[in-house]
Amino acid sequence: MSELRKDPVTGRWVIIASERAKRPQQRNVVDSSAEIEPCPFCAGNEALTPPEALAYRKTPAQPNSSGWSVRVVPNKYPALEPGAAWHADHDGLFEQMNGVGIHEVIIESPEHVTNMGSLSAEQMDLVLRAYQERLRRWRNDSRWQCLLIYKNQGERAGATLEHVHSQLVALPRVPKDIADKTASMLKHYASTGQCIYCELIQKEIERRERLVSSDEHFIVLCPFAPRFAYETWIVPRDHAPVFEYGSETDTIALARTLRETITRLNGALDNPPFNYVIHTSPFAERASRHYHWHMEIMPQLTRAAGFEWGSGTHINPVSPEAAARLLRDARI
Amino acid sequence: MSELRKDPVTGRWVIIASERAKRPQQRNVVDSSAEIEPCPFCAGNEALTPPEALAYRKTPAQPNSSGWSVRVVPNKYPALEPGAAWHADHDGLFEQMNGVGIHEVIIESPEHVTNMGSLSAEQMDLVLRAYQERLRRWRNDSRWQCLLIYKNQGERAGATLEHVHSQLVALPRVPKDIADKTASMLKHYASTGQCIYCELIQKEIERRERLVSSDEHFIVLCPFAPRFAYETWIVPRDHAPVFEYGSETDTIALARTLRETITRLNGALDNPPFNYVIHTSPFAERASRHYHWHMEIMPQLTRAAGFEWGSGTHINPVSPEAAARLLRDARI
Repeated sequence: MSELRKDPVTGRWVIIASERAKRPQQRNVVDSSAEIEPCPFCAGNEALTPPEALAYRKTPAQPNSSGWSVRVVPNKYPALEPGAAWHADHDGLFEQMNGVGIHEVIIESPEHVTNMGSLSAEQMDLVLRAYQERLRRWRNDSRWQCLLIYKNQGERAGATLEHVHSQLVALPRVPKDIADKTASMLKHYASTGQCIYCELIQKEIERRERLVSSDEHFIVLCPFAPRFAYETWIVPRDHAPVFEYGSETDTIALARTLRETITRLNGALDNPPFNYVIHTSPFAERASRHYHWHMEIMPQLTRAAGFEWGSGTHINPVSPEAAARLLRDARI
Repeated sequence: MSELRKDPVTGRWVIIASERAKRPQQRNVVDSSAEIEPCPFCAGNEALTPPEALAYRKTPAQPNSSGWSVRVVPNKYPALEPGAAWHADHDGLFEQMNGVGIHEVIIESPEHVTNMGSLSAEQMDLVLRAYQERLRRWRNDSRWQCLLIYKNQGERAGATLEHVHSQLVALPRVPKDIADKTASMLKHYASTGQCIYCELIQKEIERRERLVSSDEHFIVLCPFAPRFAYETWIVPRDHAPVFEYGSETDTIALARTLRETITRLNGALDNPPFNYVIHTSPFAERASRHYHWHMEIMPQLTRAAGFEWGSGTHINPVSPEAAARLLRDARI
């Protein structure tokens, strides 16, 4: 089992997961014909994954049989595992706990699709519903204080399997960066009476220069101070702290917006590797006036290096105004 | 000129440096024979870099002629530039300033050496002296609040040129991560009366399990909660806040220790790509009881992905105890 350890100086947790060194690495994630190993995420290969936690099927069938359109399974090489009882150990400067948590994989298509932009809006909608269903499941479990959905597409974005998938992690502690960010939102609300994201999107709509697209549900923008070239955020127009309690209409709209945004990135940047993260309110909170859920899409075109790892300050060679211009003009 | 922009939610600065998109990228940084462009860092090609800020020569000669053993030049594609007057702009949520700062390159050898482990201890000592001389130069300039030395070796660690070099950055503001870390050291000192690094190395010497090597000057260890597999720190045994005011004996000892540590990493991990960073006290402080300078060496064997970028929490597949064991046993 993995361990969570806290850096005594920075207060930042890390996960020491020795088991993950055994993960198979697909040799060639670009040319799928070069794969020799069968893909564990393809329909028909259900036996190659741990038993499913959720699957959407048009017609009822046995669990772990084919015929599904979206399937959720525990990660076979988990960074965190739910089995054991939680125990912490604090020896002077050294604080650690066993790696309890949830680590699931959302398989986004039964076919061997390798670019999320190729999914239909309907399929994208099913993927988002699967995210929401699993997040609701784990939000109701008092062991977890922080839930995160993320995606790695492309080898340069850290994907080890190319078949479209994303991941869910539930953590027993709120990571420092997320705690700091949440505290900052709370502070802004306490001092101004306004949600900082509500204020931000209002300003971005007025200025237009960093706006990529918008409809009555979502604002797509390149943020003022992006860490990554062509970083793009999707933010709900109306204040909402928790992604997984969005209405059906909202989710359909998000599927459309997400698909359109990935299509823009694919067109403008020739199918870039990217990560995305859905930030939904940490702690057990469902109602919060200060936390506004949002999605961050981070193309991985340059590499973090010594300066970034040493200072936490990113050097970004593309201004968000130039990025937004390119993405606005991209074909959808 | 670049811009410094502050993320209104996280408080983190980024550098928007559009000029850096024009950097030449060596096609093949592994096979040096494949290079067509002449290397701007080799002796004889001095005209390909901006005029030197410092050079160590055995016999006096014209600046920017060959015959040097270590040479420092302004970065040709700087993230920050010293020329302009500093001005900030604060418009509601959006805070920015022009990208004033220092960005220099320390060329570590006149020959086309590509692995720092190949330098002699004497050459390494000259490199460290050049770091110190330039850091002292910029510490005396009241415009800068934070100085950082870093190195990118290997393409996967973000190097764009393979000829051994490192970089110096001087910033007009202290980046959030460094400010947070410094505040944490101060808090520990205020509440315990002890420097946290002094306490840490004492504990690591007692326990031995994460110790790689030690002598009367320096402790080399794999930290308790490393972000990166085989991350290794070099920490001076005696309390010292500022790296660049180390004694000649200390610097000679550091050159020996650094060379030995890189040799261990090269042997154990087959010449891994790595970054290193020298953390020296920020602000104008030269005497500080809470800040202890140190060096962090971060091999880049795995890739940060969505989880890391979304949470700031790193998943590390190698425990520091296993890493230290391997490095202790490596040939030097």
